[in-house]
Amino acid sequence: METLHVDLGDRAYPIFIGSVLTNSELIKPYLTSNQICIVTNTVVAPLYLEAFCESLSDYSILKVILPDGESHKDLDTLNTIFDQLLAHHHNRKTTLIALGGGVTGDMTGFAAACYQRGVNFIQVPTTLLSQVDSSVGGKTGVNHKLGKNMIGAFYQPKCVLADTDVLKTLPQRELSAGIAEIIKYGLLGDAEFFEWLEEHVEKLLECDREALTYAIKRSCENKAQIVAQDEKESGVRAYLNLGHTFGHAIETAMGYGTWLHGEAVGAGMMMAVDLSARMGLIDESVVSRTKSLLERAKLPIQGPACMTNEQYIDLMSVDKKVLDGRLRLVLLKSLGEAFVTSDVDPKILAETLNATRSTD
Amino acid sequence: METLHVDLGDRAYPIFIGSVLTNSELIKPYLTSNQICIVTNTVVAPLYLEAFCESLSDYSILKVILPDGESHKDLDTLNTIFDQLLAHHHNRKTTLIALGGGVTGDMTGFAAACYQRGVNFIQVPTTLLSQVDSSVGGKTGVNHKLGKNMIGAFYQPKCVLADTDVLKTLPQRELSAGIAEIIKYGLLGDAEFFEWLEEHVEKLLECDREALTYAIKRSCENKAQIVAQDEKESGVRAYLNLGHTFGHAIETAMGYGTWLHGEAVGAGMMMAVDLSARMGLIDESVVSRTKSLLERAKLPIQGPACMTNEQYIDLMSVDKKVLDGRLRLVLLKSLGEAFVTSDVDPKILAETLNATRSTD
Repeated sequence: METLHVDLGDRAYPIFIGSVLTNSELIKPYLTSNQICIVTNTVVAPLYLEAFCESLSDYSILKVILPDGESHKDLDTLNTIFDQLLAHHHNRKTTLIALGGGVTGDMTGFAAACYQRGVNFIQVPTTLLSQVDSSVGGKTGVNHKLGKNMIGAFYQPKCVLADTDVLKTLPQRELSAGIAEIIKYGLLGDAEFFEWLEEHVEKLLECDREALTYAIKRSCENKAQIVAQDEKESGVRAYLNLGHTFGHAIETAMGYGTWLHGEAVGAGMMMAVDLSARMGLIDESVVSRTKSLLERAKLPIQGPACMTNEQYIDLMSVDKKVLDGRLRLVLLKSLGEAFVTSDVDPKILAETLNATRSTD
Repeated sequence: METLHVDLGDRAYPIFIGSVLTNSELIKPYLTSNQICIVTNTVVAPLYLEAFCESLSDYSILKVILPDGESHKDLDTLNTIFDQLLAHHHNRKTTLIALGGGVTGDMTGFAAACYQRGVNFIQVPTTLLSQVDSSVGGKTGVNHKLGKNMIGAFYQPKCVLADTDVLKTLPQRELSAGIAEIIKYGLLGDAEFFEWLEEHVEKLLECDREALTYAIKRSCENKAQIVAQDEKESGVRAYLNLGHTFGHAIETAMGYGTWLHGEAVGAGMMMAVDLSARMGLIDESVVSRTKSLLERAKLPIQGPACMTNEQYIDLMSVDKKVLDGRLRLVLLKSLGEAFVTSDVDPKILAETLNATRSTD
């Protein structure tokens, strides 16, 4: 087992990585009373809920099983968590535990942030994407029909259990979606890690435990370092949005859940890298290496055929990264070095959107 | 004009009290961009929205007018604020301004806490109750059908404008409801202020500006002092709930909006004082002085005839103040000195509930 400490002062917390799901000694120090509410979904519950609950048999456990998928990440579904907590008289010393992927984590974390104005929260991410991404940074929230993650809170968990064994039951598409975020950390700030990925990406797809543990830890370290510098996203944290402004536009246009978040980010990173090259910031080799790595990770490298440039511009301009009407994008100035700019020529942006549109 | 500084470290903010509504020089230093969203309701809008907007004519103002009343303080109404913000492309530098009473302030503050995970927030309370209570402390939120204020956040405004002139258009019932919270500060921690109120309560009902300014400032000072000691409500802040556990039960049982919050707190304080006397903590003179002051303030001193003891116990046990199944109540050990106890004999509690039930 590896332990990573996310350093956020009085909100610091550990991430335990390895065979940790049913090791209740890890979690017990972080429970604040006998009440626990485990929030999970219809896919994860049959696989891991029983074993996880058994390891916590000394506690009074309320189980909330949500429908699966990004399309249910909304205020209505959130309210069903509150319904259950109140019906079962959970008080402000309760602990909400998210057992599931990013959607479960985001909603459970936001429910914990809001229930009685804030209760204890623990994350047990069961997808690769949520292990490397959602479990670090304290971003919680739900979608609105006019924009993704528009309603939420910054709220830190008390601890995170990232179990590598559960990834074996993950569909290949979701594994790839997680690898997209892992590649992101290489691209935006860690060229050495990008090179490691060029050597080991197939190992990740094969669910090789050693490779996964290394990739999860290194991704979380990269993210934790950035988040610790900038908890409320006013500066360098924006780098983490590499590929996301494009990606969110794709997710919104196609309807949440059609594209996996990681898939949209994969295509979005390709767009950001393509744009960086067209603007003369990086050379063509970075484009081809990124393209090759994404393809080997079985990720899309093009946006949907049906999306027009106008749709991208419209949807990207409601993104949270827009300030005072100017589109701000995270681009690369070299492999492993991101920066933020609002100085993007609309013509070059159009070239990128045209070049990265699927022709299928 | 009087200025009170609420000291919360990096979240400290000023409260401006007096003829301040259209003095935009007070508010401008706290605006973070050209975007403003003013949230108000159908009662306040015709009275003050136009004048307030005119004073801010240099800004791009989005007006959101909500239905009036506690019965609309829910997630659905909250979502209509998000709808408008997103439809008008408000970004994370926008400022939400609450122009209205406690319900408007609680909802707007919670919307500001959640929109894009937190945007700038300013409060312009237009009722006496919200001026002395909701505008200090950072409590924001909405109701759930199973409990009041169960969903929310601690979120501080950047500044508060408490205008005394607007109180002249306030219905007498609402003025009295505000006086209930003012009396609370006397009872729980400021015996000298309680005595001042015994001399001046009619002046408050007459909307005497000098008396109101003094009472608002002193109440806010009392509250600010308690909140500064205990921002997240783990200790002394619980004293502010004097009368509220009973009061919330009344509000929930009767349906939100039937009793005004301050009215329910008035009857609730009478119950807390009655219980304190029956438990031998205070002498009868405190009971009779409290009763007399509440009556002079035109506040109810009894709970609804239709509510049974069982209803009270059930509803009080979902209150946020309940920990590990034990009912915790704020009681008095002398006039001007509150404390929290979970050591309440159910028989004596029943006596209080029976004695304070209306026979009408």
